[in-house]
Amino acid sequence: MSVVLAHNSYGKSQVHLTRVTRHADRHDLKELAVAIQLEGDFAASYLKGDNSHVIATDTMKNTVYVLAKQQGLTDIEGFGQLLAGHFLKEYPQVAAATITLVEEPWQRLVALGREQPHAFAGGGGEKRTSTIVGTRQGLQVESGLDGLLLLKTTDSAFTGFVRDRYTTLPETSDRIFATALSASWLFRGITVDFDKWHQVIRQTLLDVFAEHNSLAVQQTLCAMGTAVLNVCADIDQITLRMPNKHRLLVNLQPFGLDNKNEVFVATDEPYGLISGTLRRE
Amino acid sequence: MSVVLAHNSYGKSQVHLTRVTRHADRHDLKELAVAIQLEGDFAASYLKGDNSHVIATDTMKNTVYVLAKQQGLTDIEGFGQLLAGHFLKEYPQVAAATITLVEEPWQRLVALGREQPHAFAGGGGEKRTSTIVGTRQGLQVESGLDGLLLLKTTDSAFTGFVRDRYTTLPETSDRIFATALSASWLFRGITVDFDKWHQVIRQTLLDVFAEHNSLAVQQTLCAMGTAVLNVCADIDQITLRMPNKHRLLVNLQPFGLDNKNEVFVATDEPYGLISGTLRRE
Amino acid sequence: MSVVLAHNSYGKSQVHLTRVTRHADRHDLKELAVAIQLEGDFAASYLKGDNSHVIATDTMKNTVYVLAKQQGLTDIEGFGQLLAGHFLKEYPQVAAATITLVEEPWQRLVALGREQPHAFAGGGGEKRTSTIVGTRQGLQVESGLDGLLLLKTTDSAFTGFVRDRYTTLPETSDRIFATALSASWLFRGITVDFDKWHQVIRQTLLDVFAEHNSLAVQQTLCAMGTAVLNVCADIDQITLRMPNKHRLLVNLQPFGLDNKNEVFVATDEPYGLISGTLRRE
Amino acid sequence: MSVVLAHNSYGKSQVHLTRVTRHADRHDLKELAVAIQLEGDFAASYLKGDNSHVIATDTMKNTVYVLAKQQGLTDIEGFGQLLAGHFLKEYPQVAAATITLVEEPWQRLVALGREQPHAFAGGGGEKRTSTIVGTRQGLQVESGLDGLLLLKTTDSAFTGFVRDRYTTLPETSDRIFATALSASWLFRGITVDFDKWHQVIRQTLLDVFAEHNSLAVQQTLCAMGTAVLNVCADIDQITLRMPNKHRLLVNLQPFGLDNKNEVFVATDEPYGLISGTLRRE
Repeated sequence: MSVVLAHNSYGKSQVHLTRVTRHADRHDLKELAVAIQLEGDFAASYLKGDNSHVIATDTMKNTVYVLAKQQGLTDIEGFGQLLAGHFLKEYPQVAAATITLVEEPWQRLVALGREQPHAFAGGGGEKRTSTIVGTRQGLQVESGLDGLLLLKTTDSAFTGFVRDRYTTLPETSDRIFATALSASWLFRGITVDFDKWHQVIRQTLLDVFAEHNSLAVQQTLCAMGTAVLNVCADIDQITLRMPNKHRLLVNLQPFGLDNKNEVFVATDEPYGLISGTLRRE
Repeated sequence: MSVVLAHNSYGKSQVHLTRVTRHADRHDLKELAVAIQLEGDFAASYLKGDNSHVIATDTMKNTVYVLAKQQGLTDIEGFGQLLAGHFLKEYPQVAAATITLVEEPWQRLVALGREQPHAFAGGGGEKRTSTIVGTRQGLQVESGLDGLLLLKTTDSAFTGFVRDRYTTLPETSDRIFATALSASWLFRGITVDFDKWHQVIRQTLLDVFAEHNSLAVQQTLCAMGTAVLNVCADIDQITLRMPNKHRLLVNLQPFGLDNKNEVFVATDEPYGLISGTLRRE
Repeated sequence: MSVVLAHNSYGKSQVHLTRVTRHADRHDLKELAVAIQLEGDFAASYLKGDNSHVIATDTMKNTVYVLAKQQGLTDIEGFGQLLAGHFLKEYPQVAAATITLVEEPWQRLVALGREQPHAFAGGGGEKRTSTIVGTRQGLQVESGLDGLLLLKTTDSAFTGFVRDRYTTLPETSDRIFATALSASWLFRGITVDFDKWHQVIRQTLLDVFAEHNSLAVQQTLCAMGTAVLNVCADIDQITLRMPNKHRLLVNLQPFGLDNKNEVFVATDEPYGLISGTLRRE
Repeated sequence: MSVVLAHNSYGKSQVHLTRVTRHADRHDLKELAVAIQLEGDFAASYLKGDNSHVIATDTMKNTVYVLAKQQGLTDIEGFGQLLAGHFLKEYPQVAAATITLVEEPWQRLVALGREQPHAFAGGGGEKRTSTIVGTRQGLQVESGLDGLLLLKTTDSAFTGFVRDRYTTLPETSDRIFATALSASWLFRGITVDFDKWHQVIRQTLLDVFAEHNSLAVQQTLCAMGTAVLNVCADIDQITLRMPNKHRLLVNLQPFGLDNKNEVFVATDEPYGLISGTLRRE
């Protein structure tokens, strides 16, 4: 019998970078967590403890800070490309570098009646994300958002599903639809205006969520993804992941009370999980 | 030797309530987690397993939903008073009822160019909070906020502190000041305009944070609390809790680079923790 | 109107210390998180930004590591006393030092048929805890445990509680009793055998939990605390906190099935929360 | 331009099941979280809101409880196969059913000098896991463990890695090696003794971790996986994931003290992340 190393990768996760750009009249702030994973000619370390090809994960961390200083940081997609390109260029043993970036949503603080030049407020749970995969063949940029909490109190139904001996859920023509949206889209190129598209795609997702008369979470997900592909010619594919964060109608009959979709209990678990990928043909 | 039951309390925590108010032209949404703790004549349950005085915690949960249906829900302070009053009125064995309320920050979704009537977006990590303590002597209302992330990239120094053989921290005239603010203020009365004061106090905290030239986190905390007491005659006391969420300057000298407050690493732990209570004399 | 600083404290939280003691035949390992809070003559920092009395929280962190090196680390109670004493002795402006210690439960790894001299396995969610309060009058030691998950599948009833128009919970003579026990006990002295008592008290809590025929969580809590006071003459008081982590019987009648306490759903929230303090008279 | 639904799946996550088997002399307890994801002929729901093929995720949840009652629950691998088989058999529109199971580590409580028949203690953070993928072609069983905390205080070096202008990490012949091991192995068949192999594989992982003289995390990972393949003929492949949970040596030179691998700070982030898959050829 013989055992082979079928796959390996290694790197550094959760490298926390805060980058301040000090303009004369204001400071800009970017805060992100970076993860780096490398694949390539590293088998000797696994098989023999020979580290001569190994770039220490501590060195990867240093690199994040050095490049952030030298090159600055505008959008996470650009910084991720810089990092992926760096590891490919510097180290011939690297076959693929995957850079994952998650940006904290700091916003300029509104205080004393105006946007502040040096003060910022945390913007909430929603993160902007990007994954850059760099190989000897080139770079691929995926961007997205994660943790966008959305809820609509009406215009959501769920009927006509399979009824059998395991089914107890009643049909409903009016329910709460709540989710924590995660979306990621794949760009065709690597030099597009990432900031603009992030804003346009995010707003398109919100617009469709708001106006869609939902017959199923699946249908709303599909409508949201389709609208994004229609609005952004620079992307070829979008994946949406929509947990169904149930709000259950509280049964108030034992107390002699009606409950016409007014009082709900928010449950964390279990939750439905609906995913779909839309692609341009 | 004899053992006595020196203190006891019990109740239900994390009762999740979603309350929709269905107006003709729009829906209003409130989502909160409620905790109830009762003290009083419950020793027989502890000492003998005699539950004749015990209000089941499941009953407390039901009560949250019944009162939310019957009385609606405008501000959490009012709903907490309703609950505290209910337990005192219904059950003579209750000496004190403490109601803790944490509101999720849902905001009307802006989509299709306008605020939506039925769709909402989660507003982030900052929560609005309230604690109501009801006894046979009356009700006391404390309100606050929790998890408000604030950061300023300049106007923060820390010098002149004790230097001894355990000290390695250099003095600094310019550092990042980042915190996750928690604040709570004690109202004099119980019928004030809680929504208005929440907004005014929150903005006052932001204004002082933005404009204060900080010589110590302690000093900024004190200035923020003092300003709130000056702006709001309806409160007598405010407590602020400001973790110092360090952003450490990255040492780039090994790479031949300066770092003039441009590149930092955000550390989660350890963190400084500064607290203070300001009171009107 | 005048505003006063009614209370203040500050310090460092989550100082992570790993202490290895290298014996010839084996290594010992202790890992803990330490929090330090100081009270005293620090008002000038709050009121004027005058830091001349301020011990930097970074210095507190250094002190943890220096004392851990110089003095070693046997039990957390001793190390906490060392720290509290240090801050009182070194700095006249300190009136009170509160040291909170939480120990990670590493255990010697059993491998290759024996306890290993240098390898350890994480022991789970249960932590050993201690809080030392030092003032100019002396030291006080509280010890405890947190996060001890316990569950019994029978010998737990809940009947005879208040039934009114808000009550829907049925009485039950047989239910699952599950909790995440938190307990803390107050020592009379400061030089007792903390390790021995931790073990004895913990086992006493387990023994009573196992054998008690529970008529209410309250009653079991009281029995557990009483037994501890009876077994340990070195403590005067014990506080127990027992969340009631509900396992709800699944209703299988829609599927034509009985459910004789066989199939339950574990719910995280809401949960009951029962607390009590027992004291020697 | 045309948009197609390239991929879709949906299901229920975090279905919490507690199963008690009531023997005359003792109760057995299993507690797990189940996730179900279905793929198949569900496009009509996404594209048109036609739910006629949709099995409600609430029905999936019911099914977990019904099958747990009817069939009992011995090992999670068997229960997962039961569920996957059920969805394939009942619903022709299902092409693939993926069942993910995570078992809570309850252990019989040792109290009053013996293993208790009805009382249990939570066993810590380490979970037993399994993923069953069922298609019309058959079932595939993957098993594993997650969150196994391991640490060795010596016999770990890291030298000979790439040194360049981005490198500051010193070489070390003796460091702490700490990880939170995640491992999963793929079985050849579906009727093997899962409980026995779980125990044997887990102990093999521990044995190699303890005795291995590590030149790199990569090398130890590879040795652990190889040993498992050598000991268990019923598996063909194993994947290990070993975050390098750094313990950094504290610099005590500013305080005039040596630190011969005695005092460390445990850091949570950033962390190294090393992965590898070993396969029988």
